[in-house]
Amino acid sequence: MAQGKLTGAAVAEHNSKDSCWVIVHGKAYDVTEFLPEHPGGQKIILKYAGKDATEEFDPIHPPDTLDKYLDQSKHLGEVDMSTVVQEEKAADPGEVERQERIKRMPPLSACYNLLDFETVARQVMKNTAWAYYSSGADDEMTMRENHSAFHKIWFRPRVLVDVEHVDFTTSMLGTKCSIPFYVTATALGKLGHPEGEVVLTRAAKKHDVIQMIPTLASCSFDEIVDARQGDQVQWLQLYVNKDRAITKRIVEHAEKRGCKGLFITVDAPQLGRREKDMRSKFDDAGSDVQSGDDGVDRSQGAARAISSFIDPALSWKDIPWFKSITKMPIVLKGVQCVEDALRAVEVGVDGIVVSNHGGRQLDTARSGIEVLAEVMPALRERGWEKRIEVFVDGGVRRATDILKALCLGAKGVGIGRPFLFAMSSYGQDGVERAMQLLKDEMEMNMRLIGATCVEDLNPSLLDTRGLLAGHSGVAPIDNLGLHAYDPLQAPRFNEKPKL
Amino acid sequence: MAQGKLTGAAVAEHNSKDSCWVIVHGKAYDVTEFLPEHPGGQKIILKYAGKDATEEFDPIHPPDTLDKYLDQSKHLGEVDMSTVVQEEKAADPGEVERQERIKRMPPLSACYNLLDFETVARQVMKNTAWAYYSSGADDEMTMRENHSAFHKIWFRPRVLVDVEHVDFTTSMLGTKCSIPFYVTATALGKLGHPEGEVVLTRAAKKHDVIQMIPTLASCSFDEIVDARQGDQVQWLQLYVNKDRAITKRIVEHAEKRGCKGLFITVDAPQLGRREKDMRSKFDDAGSDVQSGDDGVDRSQGAARAISSFIDPALSWKDIPWFKSITKMPIVLKGVQCVEDALRAVEVGVDGIVVSNHGGRQLDTARSGIEVLAEVMPALRERGWEKRIEVFVDGGVRRATDILKALCLGAKGVGIGRPFLFAMSSYGQDGVERAMQLLKDEMEMNMRLIGATCVEDLNPSLLDTRGLLAGHSGVAPIDNLGLHAYDPLQAPRFNEKPKL
Amino acid sequence: MAQGKLTGAAVAEHNSKDSCWVIVHGKAYDVTEFLPEHPGGQKIILKYAGKDATEEFDPIHPPDTLDKYLDQSKHLGEVDMSTVVQEEKAADPGEVERQERIKRMPPLSACYNLLDFETVARQVMKNTAWAYYSSGADDEMTMRENHSAFHKIWFRPRVLVDVEHVDFTTSMLGTKCSIPFYVTATALGKLGHPEGEVVLTRAAKKHDVIQMIPTLASCSFDEIVDARQGDQVQWLQLYVNKDRAITKRIVEHAEKRGCKGLFITVDAPQLGRREKDMRSKFDDAGSDVQSGDDGVDRSQGAARAISSFIDPALSWKDIPWFKSITKMPIVLKGVQCVEDALRAVEVGVDGIVVSNHGGRQLDTARSGIEVLAEVMPALRERGWEKRIEVFVDGGVRRATDILKALCLGAKGVGIGRPFLFAMSSYGQDGVERAMQLLKDEMEMNMRLIGATCVEDLNPSLLDTRGLLAGHSGVAPIDNLGLHAYDPLQAPRFNEKPKL
Amino acid sequence: MAQGKLTGAAVAEHNSKDSCWVIVHGKAYDVTEFLPEHPGGQKIILKYAGKDATEEFDPIHPPDTLDKYLDQSKHLGEVDMSTVVQEEKAADPGEVERQERIKRMPPLSACYNLLDFETVARQVMKNTAWAYYSSGADDEMTMRENHSAFHKIWFRPRVLVDVEHVDFTTSMLGTKCSIPFYVTATALGKLGHPEGEVVLTRAAKKHDVIQMIPTLASCSFDEIVDARQGDQVQWLQLYVNKDRAITKRIVEHAEKRGCKGLFITVDAPQLGRREKDMRSKFDDAGSDVQSGDDGVDRSQGAARAISSFIDPALSWKDIPWFKSITKMPIVLKGVQCVEDALRAVEVGVDGIVVSNHGGRQLDTARSGIEVLAEVMPALRERGWEKRIEVFVDGGVRRATDILKALCLGAKGVGIGRPFLFAMSSYGQDGVERAMQLLKDEMEMNMRLIGATCVEDLNPSLLDTRGLLAGHSGVAPIDNLGLHAYDPLQAPRFNEKPKL
Repeated sequence: MAQGKLTGAAVAEHNSKDSCWVIVHGKAYDVTEFLPEHPGGQKIILKYAGKDATEEFDPIHPPDTLDKYLDQSKHLGEVDMSTVVQEEKAADPGEVERQERIKRMPPLSACYNLLDFETVARQVMKNTAWAYYSSGADDEMTMRENHSAFHKIWFRPRVLVDVEHVDFTTSMLGTKCSIPFYVTATALGKLGHPEGEVVLTRAAKKHDVIQMIPTLASCSFDEIVDARQGDQVQWLQLYVNKDRAITKRIVEHAEKRGCKGLFITVDAPQLGRREKDMRSKFDDAGSDVQSGDDGVDRSQGAARAISSFIDPALSWKDIPWFKSITKMPIVLKGVQCVEDALRAVEVGVDGIVVSNHGGRQLDTARSGIEVLAEVMPALRERGWEKRIEVFVDGGVRRATDILKALCLGAKGVGIGRPFLFAMSSYGQDGVERAMQLLKDEMEMNMRLIGATCVEDLNPSLLDTRGLLAGHSGVAPIDNLGLHAYDPLQAPRFNEKPKL
Repeated sequence: MAQGKLTGAAVAEHNSKDSCWVIVHGKAYDVTEFLPEHPGGQKIILKYAGKDATEEFDPIHPPDTLDKYLDQSKHLGEVDMSTVVQEEKAADPGEVERQERIKRMPPLSACYNLLDFETVARQVMKNTAWAYYSSGADDEMTMRENHSAFHKIWFRPRVLVDVEHVDFTTSMLGTKCSIPFYVTATALGKLGHPEGEVVLTRAAKKHDVIQMIPTLASCSFDEIVDARQGDQVQWLQLYVNKDRAITKRIVEHAEKRGCKGLFITVDAPQLGRREKDMRSKFDDAGSDVQSGDDGVDRSQGAARAISSFIDPALSWKDIPWFKSITKMPIVLKGVQCVEDALRAVEVGVDGIVVSNHGGRQLDTARSGIEVLAEVMPALRERGWEKRIEVFVDGGVRRATDILKALCLGAKGVGIGRPFLFAMSSYGQDGVERAMQLLKDEMEMNMRLIGATCVEDLNPSLLDTRGLLAGHSGVAPIDNLGLHAYDPLQAPRFNEKPKL
Repeated sequence: MAQGKLTGAAVAEHNSKDSCWVIVHGKAYDVTEFLPEHPGGQKIILKYAGKDATEEFDPIHPPDTLDKYLDQSKHLGEVDMSTVVQEEKAADPGEVERQERIKRMPPLSACYNLLDFETVARQVMKNTAWAYYSSGADDEMTMRENHSAFHKIWFRPRVLVDVEHVDFTTSMLGTKCSIPFYVTATALGKLGHPEGEVVLTRAAKKHDVIQMIPTLASCSFDEIVDARQGDQVQWLQLYVNKDRAITKRIVEHAEKRGCKGLFITVDAPQLGRREKDMRSKFDDAGSDVQSGDDGVDRSQGAARAISSFIDPALSWKDIPWFKSITKMPIVLKGVQCVEDALRAVEVGVDGIVVSNHGGRQLDTARSGIEVLAEVMPALRERGWEKRIEVFVDGGVRRATDILKALCLGAKGVGIGRPFLFAMSSYGQDGVERAMQLLKDEMEMNMRLIGATCVEDLNPSLLDTRGLLAGHSGVAPIDNLGLHAYDPLQAPRFNEKPKL
Repeated sequence: MAQGKLTGAAVAEHNSKDSCWVIVHGKAYDVTEFLPEHPGGQKIILKYAGKDATEEFDPIHPPDTLDKYLDQSKHLGEVDMSTVVQEEKAADPGEVERQERIKRMPPLSACYNLLDFETVARQVMKNTAWAYYSSGADDEMTMRENHSAFHKIWFRPRVLVDVEHVDFTTSMLGTKCSIPFYVTATALGKLGHPEGEVVLTRAAKKHDVIQMIPTLASCSFDEIVDARQGDQVQWLQLYVNKDRAITKRIVEHAEKRGCKGLFITVDAPQLGRREKDMRSKFDDAGSDVQSGDDGVDRSQGAARAISSFIDPALSWKDIPWFKSITKMPIVLKGVQCVEDALRAVEVGVDGIVVSNHGGRQLDTARSGIEVLAEVMPALRERGWEKRIEVFVDGGVRRATDILKALCLGAKGVGIGRPFLFAMSSYGQDGVERAMQLLKDEMEMNMRLIGATCVEDLNPSLLDTRGLLAGHSGVAPIDNLGLHAYDPLQAPRFNEKPKL
């Protein structure tokens, strides 16, 4: 037994609510008093009471979490890991099959578009990680509408334009970038890749695109900033804490570390219920947990575990304070109707993101692209279209989607999940290829639409009538009629070959 | 043989139209003369002539039925049940499988939304019970439209509203309640649960929501009222009998027993044909019944069996009489167009329910929520929106559905089938969890929509353009084209693992 | 060998184009000279040269055909059928399976609506007969639209109307009938039932509905009229022959035999191509026929075989002549736009049927009900709505469909295929039950819509906005997105039972 | 060994980038220096370095390619093919199955419409050929919309028109033709048929329709012209080369050889990405190629290999120059909005084709027929409708499609893929039958619409409201609701036969 280290047996004694120790990265911590404050609920900690919690801890907590949030007196020191009993995990047939699939993965070069990464990721990611990334609110109507809404907008291209030289560089909040999209903030990057968000940082650098750093990253803020190279630009996505002092510290730190934009999330006073995520957690917990009384707590999924920091009281009256604490441009992320867009101009912020949080918050909220089509004419009518930069995110999968947003008047679009899926499947190479594919598509489609630069993009290049009718829903199927109908057949092949 | 009791053999002799005795709950009854008056037809009684009919009798008849409707002279006294020959039932493979499924039921805590209960219920309920609860009129277009119609309405949420404290209590017909829904009246509760409607009463109490007592309950009216606790509030749903004296007795009794609202059903001058229900009964009757001549009578299903009490002559001219016999607020349940809504105001009732009876009456009748969107602007135009309370039912499954109804102007929504399915699957616990889930969703979605109380809910929070285009139907599929088209594929996984 | 009769061998010698004899119903006929005139092409006759053609002949030709169209000199007299070699038919596995299905047919009483008959018929009819009845033009878009179009119209029912007594009798062209539908003309009744159209005559009598006699019936006109009982009313559907003398003879004969209406088909200057029908014939011809050169002739199906009598030159200028040769009310069957409807009034006919011939002629022609919704307001605008009776056919399957047509302003609706399917599956009993089901539905739905008689039916009872947007077609599916999306799941049942 | 011929061994030595020889049609060529200039990339050539490349070479290169583009000094002379080692191809199970399917092919006469050919072709064509012909841009939305858009237009036929004589001949660019369609230009004909485009030339002659010769044919331009017979008319489709001298040579040569129209492609400044085609090539390359770095180059598919000749700088300012170098009527192929159509009139060209290149360029570009409906009213408004001839292509599969285009105002329609599929499946016979089917449909549908000649065709015969609403997209499916719903069933057949 190693000198001065705790033994596994010693830790294992503290395996209850009354005295709860856990091991993380070879060190023991006394979390007994912290239990009631744990944002994710105490249940999940108690599952690891007296044990090694590293594997569960890692994707959900930045490495500086324990230093930041647990008093030093509770840091019990190193554990001799050779004395910790390894729990024998029941063989998980699903996991065995997943490992098989990973071995048979398509080569990266077989991915031709952003949706391909998603289809691959669905096969090779861990269930719980997939569920967290891919889930949306309630019936996931909004989540799916986000991409579908782009299919309501069709092009009116111009021909016989000299498009030999096509330039789709642009600038966002004063930063020049190679293509009008940015990597938007998404939480818990280590669920998909052991290195987490810094993978995105590196890929963004390669392609000269801006990265927005999430409050709820798996990496610490500083790790992500440290991964920045050269004149690479990052923005900060902010969940506002009830304790404004904490928020102030975060904002000032970000500004000091060189962040060039502050995106305040305004569509998440509470983090959404995502049933696919909840069900994934629930299944993971196994079939022995069946009492009804504690079901709600147990089945919250990753989403709910990270929401306690968010202040539901955040309101318009807080905006002046934000302007007072930072020189970074301030952007409201999650505006969803024209009334709020106009108010944002009046309150003097620098931009808005029309967004529904990737369909993860309010179901049957409209798509960002639809809100954009409502907002921009109102801004132009008032001559305000230059007073703020308008961004849009949600459902962007093709360069044609980006082009539609820019034709409507967006300054740029945010892309989140697709890069997570590319990262989860193929690491940094995957993210880079995803970005390259968008650039290839962008060049081609700029040419095909008859535009040589982003200034050429305007509403007359679009047919947006499909947005005007609102949401028609799905008509009930005539099941009896459908079964009675004998569908037309194509010519029949002979059963046997001709002689 | 027990002293003074009838023997099974004695009863069994009366097994024909000419002399028909049946056993119910250990007592024998002579129903020979009652046969032609039986609302459900004599056929079903004759099936049990000379036998024990308890199992079939129970879900369809409140326990006080025989006392109320069969003269005491026909009550023949107790039967020594040990002498009654138990019919050997043919093993029903479907029933065996159902029992298997019940053993493997998901735990209650795995139900995350109201539709989950329905999916479970479909697996664990008896076929005939499922068919009665789940069926609708004709092609069930209206039944399905009821929920789909909510998907034509999308949100226009407001952000940066202080939603720390969210209050969704409200009042309906003067009663304060915890959330703007009530348990609407549904018939034959014992088909789904041996205790019937009182299960709903108890759950409603737990969650402080109002229950509407159905005329056609399996429990007797008094049993349901007796199950009430404390200041719990109940309403009465009324099918109006041809004999107004009976109706008057029912209404006065209800008022005396403390009911706080009278909901007169106006959309059911005759109970609808529900083919799924009919087919279920038919299949149940077995394959030996195959002569065509009596098919219509035999296959009416549970719905038709309970309709004889309803007066098709009920009309606007009856309303003053109702006002004269009760002080309870009067609400017309089943209004389906703006003309009738205005007339309801003029005639001076206290409220209306825009409803199509859960899609069980007239097929391709419009959804309640669509009618609501037609009615409320007309009321506001006339300044009449405070003169009646407008409720809506049909298809409510999510708190977002409730919010949409309230934004349009409804005072509250009725929810029926979902609680039946929850009760049939998980009993009172199921109903309580269903209600809790709605409350959880409600709190979250109030926040996400940017409303702190029900007064904040208004039409500007909605995009209802999807309702304006009417019902577009389903376009015919291009089958030949569909088969000729070779759909895009995702990247292929290798057949064998890479080395 | 029977005295004075021809032998099979003698007939069999005439088995070529140069000398072609065929046997029909035990008599031989020399059709050599008739071959080039045969409306269905000579190929089909030559297949039976020297043989017994009765089975093929019967459904397509009324029994008086040979007397009418083949000179008596070609009638060769009786054949001793015992000397005719019976062709051994190859066992047809499809036919064996069909016979099996017939044995397992659902009882008639299990059919609850008109679509049920169609589903049963699809299983129990001969392929070629099913193909002829069920097929439509080209992609069968119009055929399917016919019923679907009714789903674009939703009800706005009135409540609190005294509907104890509901009366849906009406009159059409002066004839009182029990319900506002008639049996419309459909060809080749013996394909579905050995007795043919007289089965419909008898059922129509039972239910007091009008039958329209088709020009192309399998029974002769006189047989159908002879089947009439009492004051039963029949109309004549007329294909106009190039030889107007023939047409005149037909019309005068019909009037003399008591027909009360003349429906001139105007939507079939040429009979449509119906590919399902063609393919059925083709498959029937077997796999040994594979040369391409004669394919077109061979594969015309039943539809093309009967079209030669129709004059494509028929035009508006012929109408006065029709008025001059008959006192029967004249109705144009197949009007498809408001312009022609107005012209029909101007030209002084007594009625029109807005119809697209059951979707069997021009594909993507609009449904009758849509045309009706276009025609009636134009008539009302001119005060012409009483000057003609407007009928509609195509896609009527439910009493709600009938009600929608009448609310829009139709005098009655024609129903064709559903009765053919009922007849083909269950004979006269089937047709009667189909009619009874419509009456049951009608009574209920009149009540539920709040109408006591047909005069109460008016456009305010309908929401027809769904018709205004025209035909939106089917949007292309996002296949990649669909495959990437992981649909929400219901709660999982345990794999093993709980202990 | 044959006198003076190269041996296979000698050629095989030159199997690298440094010295690369290939054999084509029995002759060797030194392509070492040409490698970097190869439009399809050098990779594909290197695959055949030192080997016989004929099979790969043929469909993609006209036979005069090597003479035209490779200096004579690099022509190394004949090879003794008996000395060339035949590569043993791994048995391809897919190919074996395809050969099986070819043996069981339906007879030509079983194809009743143009879609039937496509369905057959999908089964019998080589994967790579099918992928090249059948693929479209991105998600193939536009490709599918092309045909679907016709289903948004429904007919308003006129009845009682004398349609005995129907004449659908017309003229296009001054050429009389038998029916208002032409064979539009499609590339790489030898992928589908060993003889390539001349098969279409011969079929077009038989049916008196115009053929448009593609720039990127597998046959050489002169071969296609040489296949012309009598007064047959051909047009030239032109991709404009960066080197205008080459373009001028092509145009002048075409005019000299008798081409009667010059169709300049304006919708392809760059050839589209077609992922189905790319994936097909990729799969073809086998599973041993898995490094990511060179993926993009390797997987471009046939489409990208042929695009290098096209000048993306082509613009309106070039049009006068074209007018100066030819007397042929000039038509712009690929106009996609009304603005460009008007500009085409102003610039003085003779015609436009509203087209999106068969959905192979910009995805979610609108269908030609939709653009036509936008263009024609604008032309008529200005009285310009006679100043240019407007053609449309994309998605035409039925005579009803042609009629719709002509009613809207098109002079004629182009049909491409359907003839390729007919040719690939059944050769010239297939193409001829496809054309005959269109003529049969055309005659019938002219009659059914009530038009005797193309001049009769006008917008009042159509209901185009379905085009006005724009593109509504696909609403998200309610998966939970769909699974909870228990669809109505048809009557059940008994499991066992009745006795």
